[in-house]
Amino acid sequence: MKHGGDILTYSHLYDGRIIDFSSNINPLGPPEGLKDEIIKGFDAVSAYPDIKYRELKKEISKYLGCDVSEVLVGNGAVEIINNIAMLFDRTVVTTPCFMEYIKRPEAMGREVLKIRLAEDFFLKASDIVDSIKSGDLVILGNPNNPTGRRIEKDVLMEIHEKVASLGAFLLLDEAFYEFCPPDYDSVKLLYGSSNLCVIRAATKFFALPGIRLGYAYASREIVERLQEIELPWSINIFADIAGRTIFKQVNYKDKSKEYIAEQREYMLRSLKEIKSIKAFESQCNFILIKLLNDIEDNIFDFMIKRGIMIRKASSFEGLDKSYIRIAVKDYESNSYLIDCLKEYEACRR
Amino acid sequence: MKHGGDILTYSHLYDGRIIDFSSNINPLGPPEGLKDEIIKGFDAVSAYPDIKYRELKKEISKYLGCDVSEVLVGNGAVEIINNIAMLFDRTVVTTPCFMEYIKRPEAMGREVLKIRLAEDFFLKASDIVDSIKSGDLVILGNPNNPTGRRIEKDVLMEIHEKVASLGAFLLLDEAFYEFCPPDYDSVKLLYGSSNLCVIRAATKFFALPGIRLGYAYASREIVERLQEIELPWSINIFADIAGRTIFKQVNYKDKSKEYIAEQREYMLRSLKEIKSIKAFESQCNFILIKLLNDIEDNIFDFMIKRGIMIRKASSFEGLDKSYIRIAVKDYESNSYLIDCLKEYEACRR
Repeated sequence: MKHGGDILTYSHLYDGRIIDFSSNINPLGPPEGLKDEIIKGFDAVSAYPDIKYRELKKEISKYLGCDVSEVLVGNGAVEIINNIAMLFDRTVVTTPCFMEYIKRPEAMGREVLKIRLAEDFFLKASDIVDSIKSGDLVILGNPNNPTGRRIEKDVLMEIHEKVASLGAFLLLDEAFYEFCPPDYDSVKLLYGSSNLCVIRAATKFFALPGIRLGYAYASREIVERLQEIELPWSINIFADIAGRTIFKQVNYKDKSKEYIAEQREYMLRSLKEIKSIKAFESQCNFILIKLLNDIEDNIFDFMIKRGIMIRKASSFEGLDKSYIRIAVKDYESNSYLIDCLKEYEACRR
Repeated sequence: MKHGGDILTYSHLYDGRIIDFSSNINPLGPPEGLKDEIIKGFDAVSAYPDIKYRELKKEISKYLGCDVSEVLVGNGAVEIINNIAMLFDRTVVTTPCFMEYIKRPEAMGREVLKIRLAEDFFLKASDIVDSIKSGDLVILGNPNNPTGRRIEKDVLMEIHEKVASLGAFLLLDEAFYEFCPPDYDSVKLLYGSSNLCVIRAATKFFALPGIRLGYAYASREIVERLQEIELPWSINIFADIAGRTIFKQVNYKDKSKEYIAEQREYMLRSLKEIKSIKAFESQCNFILIKLLNDIEDNIFDFMIKRGIMIRKASSFEGLDKSYIRIAVKDYESNSYLIDCLKEYEACRR
C-alpha cells in the first residue's frame, strides 16, 4: 500500500532536508496553544480516555452543527471509512480515488464496484446512479483525492436522492473540506438524512497528521450500529485533548483558508506556463498533474535530487504512470517547486 | 460493549473521587521522564508518523528479543487482535475471556467457536485441542482476563504443537505478561514458529492506557500479510515517542513486578478471610471473585457509594451475575477495598 508522506524512505538521498509535496497538510502548521494544552493534560495518560469521548464529541458537534448523538470519531478518517465499510456487502467507488475506499472493504473480503471517471475527472450523477443497488455503500471523496475536484452541489443532491430512494448509503470523505471555497456544506445541505455519513479530519486542515483524529457526522442509527462494532478507545488521550482545543480557533481557520486559496491560484497560474505538463483544476490544497511526455519515475528522481518529494500517482487505481500529485504549500516552497519544474522542462527539450 | 475504566459514567455518584478497581493498570503510574520526551518531540505532530514505525519497532524488537521484521504494532492490543482475526474464517476461544476475542471476528461476520472452561478456569490442552481445525485462529489470554490464570508451560506447548501440526494459528494475548511471575517467556519458548503471534501492550504494565500502544511478536509471514491490510498510521506520534522511551526503563520494570507480586499476595490472603466470596488464584494484577450469595449489582452499588468502582463480570461470556473482578492496586487503595468488603460482609449477615 503506497501513501504520501513516507519521507523517511528518501531522507538519505538529500541530506534529510526534503520538502514534502507528497502529503497535503496545511502549510501554516498546527493551531497555536496546542502544545500547552497537551502539557497541561499530560497526566491523563495514566487513565483510559473517556470510552464515550463525551467532551470531544460535544466540541465536534458544535463545529459541524449537528447533535452530539450524530458524531463519530476515529483513529484518523480511515478508521471511520473502515468501520462503515464493515456494515455493507458491496461498496461502489469512482476511480481514481483514495485507495483505502477500495482496500478497506477488500481486506474484509467484500465486493467493490469501481467506476472509472472520464479523463477530466468531473463526476456526473449519470456516471454512477444506474450502478447503485439497494443496500450498497457509495464512497465519494469530496473534494476527491487525487483529482482535487469537489462534487458539484446539484450532482451531490441527485446522487444522494438516488441513494436514499434505494435504501443505499452515501459516505462522503471530506477530509479536505475546509480547504475548499465556501460553496456549500454537505452536513447542512443533507442534514437529517438517514443514508449519510460525512467524514472530516484534523489531519489535513489543522496540520496534525501526527495526532490521528478523524470525525464525522452520521445518522443516529449508524452511530449506534457502529458503537457495537468499533474498537474501544481508538482515539488516544492527546488526540482527545487536541480535538477539544482546535475547533475553537476561528482566526486560524480563516487565515488558513485565505492563504491556501491564494497559493492554489498562484500554483495553478504558474503550472499553466509549463507546457510539458497539464495541471487539473483543483478546489483544494493539492493538484493532480498529467505528464504529457514522461513517466512519474523520471520526474520523481529529478525532483528528489533537488530536495522535493512529489507523489507518484500510479498507485491510485485508474491512473497510469503519466500522473503525479503535488501539495499546495507555503509560498517559498511552492515557488521553489515551480522553479524546479521549469528546470525539468528545460532539460526535457 | 462493556469495558472497565468507564469511570466518568459514575463520577456524579461520589463527588468525582472514585478509586477505579475496574481497570487493571500498574498502580505505580507511568515511567518517569515520558512527559519530557513528549514535550521534546511535540513538533512532530505536524508530520505523519513514520508509516513503517522503524525506530519504534527497533526498540520493541530489543525488548521482545526478536527481529525487527517480526514486530507488529497497533492502536492498542485490540487493533492487532482485530487485524489478525481478519485473516481467518473461524476463531476458537475459551470462555470466559476478553470479549474482544469474540467481538472482533463477529463484527466481520466470521464464525467463533466458544469453549466454556470448567469452573476452576484452569485451561487443559484437552479442553480445546480436539476442537481445532486446519486454518483456525485460536485466541488465548495468557494470563487470561478476567480469570487471572496463566497457561501452564506444558499446556501451552501441547496446544501450540497441535496448532502447528494442523496449520492453524495461535494468537496469545499477553497484555498482562509483565505482571506475572517469571515462569516462562512465550516468545523465547516458541520463537521461530510460523503459526504464532504473541501480543503485549504498553497499556497495563507501563500504566499508559491513554497512549494506545499494542505490539506483538509474530512470524514474518504474518507481519507481511498484515502490512497489506492494516490501517496506515494507526499509532499516533505520542504513542510512537512513548514506545521509543519506556522499554529502556529496567528499574521501573523490576520495581513494578516486585510491588505487584507483594500486593497480589496481600490481596489474596485478605480476600480468603471474607467468607461470603471466593477469590480465584491469580498470577497477575487482577482477581476474579465469585459472590457466594449475591449478585454483582448489589456489591457494585455498595462499593460505588464508598468511592470504589469494581468490575461487574457478567458482561464476560460464560460468567453470570455472581462474579466480579477487581484490580490489584497500591497498598492504600487495596486495604481500603478490603475494609469495604469486610463491611459488605457484615451488612450481609
